Amino acid sequence: MTASTSPLARPFPALPAIDGITLRVARARYKDWDRADLTLIECAKGTAVAGVFTRNVCCSSEVELGREQARLGRARAVVVNAGNSNAFTGYRGREAVEAIMAQVAAHYGCQPSDVFVSSTGVIGVPLPQDKARAGIAAAIAAEPCDWEDAASAIGTTDTFTKGAGASALVGPVRVELAGIIKGSGMIAPDMATMLGYIATDAAVAPGFLQEMLAKANAESFSCITVDGDTSTSDTVLLLATGKAGNAVLESWDSPGADAFYAALRQVCRDLAHRVVRDGEGAQKFIAIRVTGATSDESARRVGLAIANSPLVKTAIAGEDANWGRIVMAVGKAGEPADRDRLSIGFGGVWAARDGQPLPDYDEAPVAAHLKGQDVSIEVDLGLGEGMATVWTCDLTHGYISINADYRS
Amino acid sequence: MTASTSPLARPFPALPAIDGITLRVARARYKDWDRADLTLIECAKGTAVAGVFTRNVCCSSEVELGREQARLGRARAVVVNAGNSNAFTGYRGREAVEAIMAQVAAHYGCQPSDVFVSSTGVIGVPLPQDKARAGIAAAIAAEPCDWEDAASAIGTTDTFTKGAGASALVGPVRVELAGIIKGSGMIAPDMATMLGYIATDAAVAPGFLQEMLAKANAESFSCITVDGDTSTSDTVLLLATGKAGNAVLESWDSPGADAFYAALRQVCRDLAHRVVRDGEGAQKFIAIRVTGATSDESARRVGLAIANSPLVKTAIAGEDANWGRIVMAVGKAGEPADRDRLSIGFGGVWAARDGQPLPDYDEAPVAAHLKGQDVSIEVDLGLGEGMATVWTCDLTHGYISINADYRS
Repeated sequence: MTASTSPLARPFPALPAIDGITLRVARARYKDWDRADLTLIECAKGTAVAGVFTRNVCCSSEVELGREQARLGRARAVVVNAGNSNAFTGYRGREAVEAIMAQVAAHYGCQPSDVFVSSTGVIGVPLPQDKARAGIAAAIAAEPCDWEDAASAIGTTDTFTKGAGASALVGPVRVELAGIIKGSGMIAPDMATMLGYIATDAAVAPGFLQEMLAKANAESFSCITVDGDTSTSDTVLLLATGKAGNAVLESWDSPGADAFYAALRQVCRDLAHRVVRDGEGAQKFIAIRVTGATSDESARRVGLAIANSPLVKTAIAGEDANWGRIVMAVGKAGEPADRDRLSIGFGGVWAARDGQPLPDYDEAPVAAHLKGQDVSIEVDLGLGEGMATVWTCDLTHGYISINADYRS
Repeated sequence: MTASTSPLARPFPALPAIDGITLRVARARYKDWDRADLTLIECAKGTAVAGVFTRNVCCSSEVELGREQARLGRARAVVVNAGNSNAFTGYRGREAVEAIMAQVAAHYGCQPSDVFVSSTGVIGVPLPQDKARAGIAAAIAAEPCDWEDAASAIGTTDTFTKGAGASALVGPVRVELAGIIKGSGMIAPDMATMLGYIATDAAVAPGFLQEMLAKANAESFSCITVDGDTSTSDTVLLLATGKAGNAVLESWDSPGADAFYAALRQVCRDLAHRVVRDGEGAQKFIAIRVTGATSDESARRVGLAIANSPLVKTAIAGEDANWGRIVMAVGKAGEPADRDRLSIGFGGVWAARDGQPLPDYDEAPVAAHLKGQDVSIEVDLGLGEGMATVWTCDLTHGYISINADYRS
């Protein structure tokens, strides 16, 4: 966290301790730095887990194993390594993950498959097993820490620590949710995105936990993009300890399921927005609202085509209401669109309607809107009822500086 | 052409006059500038035409009409307007195109459908009919000019004029090809890309002319990308006057068809490379060679995923042999790939083989290669026989400066 803090940063929120979750960090020194870079999340026995993972087919061993483990629905511990992604390291990378799982399982007296591992950082360097072993021993011996310490320890190029929380009533029982996330580049949707960990004391059956996480993911992490690049390591885990004592949520019919889902979605969206706000070089937070599409999924794809267009992103960086570039991005999305029904606006002011610039279009309020940090783009395709919102940031000199200099 | 010339620029080549083609330019003053911005290409009676056009569904009226006209296979004239793309301008834009077609057709005594129109520049402003009318009248009255003058007149943000030529023997007859092109941003494949005009004195049947242009397009313009953005106006026209007097090329079985195609492909590739060399902010020309894919098309898609990755493009700008980012881009391409069979090299030196970094990898020759202007990336997927080469440029501060400042 050496780069200057993003101008779009949000302060780390007050997050509750989650009954059944204990956080610890240690210095494994995966890189030549003096900071905590190994995080150990201890989960009470009986904790249910759900996970969503990158769809990048060149994923890391951590992701390959984690995807299998998540199907079992149980977690006793999570280990997060920062500074080395251990991706594209062949059998040596896999051995390093299995060694961590065995060491932690021996300590807690659980199955290795109850221990989840994530790693983030440089690709192509096998995770050094000696550093991991010593780091885990140090973490086990360490005093528990809070969410902000853990959020700091999982970060790499992040310029601020990111967390979000919410609570919900499940029947008469108040349950808490707390989550942390890291990520600022190599961020694209169509995957689980980044490293994120959300914990709750609610009791939720593993299958339903997975269903809710997948749904919340589709409405949050899958709707953000920084650079259209999809990491090989991205993971979001949701841990439910059950310590709150509510009647177990089994399905959407369970009393309180909707309230719990609403809180979960809020946490996921809040975390996703914070990742965009730490987008490499970001100066503006952009919400793209697409309506009138033939389906919600089509609306999302059109939104992402806009959000991933370098020409749109640079126009917003230049505070230029260049709706012609948005027309272009809509047209290249590969989704149903009709040029002559298309309408485009900024900050709630239409610039073009039904395929033509508005003759009385007043650019002054739009220009004022674009000077702000939070920019909205409205696109109405005029075809159907599908809608989606997608979030991204602008593309600036800062992105180039960060990524042309970041050393492999 | 006010920005400083691209460091990757190539001098305009010596191009032959094409018998049956007469070039003229004029000042329509579509923008507040003092330069030729209207080009009139007169074609001899009997000229065959083929065209490939943008797949952007929000395309301009010029493209909509041109696509229909190209099916008829005849051209008597081409008009190219620079400074205003006339895209997203509704019925007024269409009227402007039809007025140009009618004016030129009246002059040459041909059908309006024999007159092709292209426009390039700002989106969303209807082409002013009065300026077009006066510009065409001036062009008709003007002295003929050469290919370089025409290449200059069709340019907008281009930093150098671009042309390419070749000749071929069709039976005993030598035929000539000459082409010009414009484009430097909003360049992506999966379409006909940019504005390009290629003329030949060869006699070719229209249907076969179209078949050859489509094939050459797939191996040239469809394999380049600058920013992944697809213009609403892109067009490549191939005009064959038949004045060389060769036996008409009717199919691949016609004597000389292969030689003519080879020359056509060479011209298309040369033009395509020049567009990449004028990529906005480009400092390096990058060739990405993908082998071992399950099909040629799959190889092309993997190559384009790499070529469109902002993280790969910034790494090359930073002269960083960051093959981890290439692994990431391969994995997100959505094509068959196996992490453990993947090999990656730079300038002919393998950095990783079969999913792991090479233990004896010597970065020194790679570092030296990356310091040059021409960079090659080799990716072997290890799965099959499919292969493709894709060309792009790096992503630099120059791209941001150009596109955050360019005014809509």
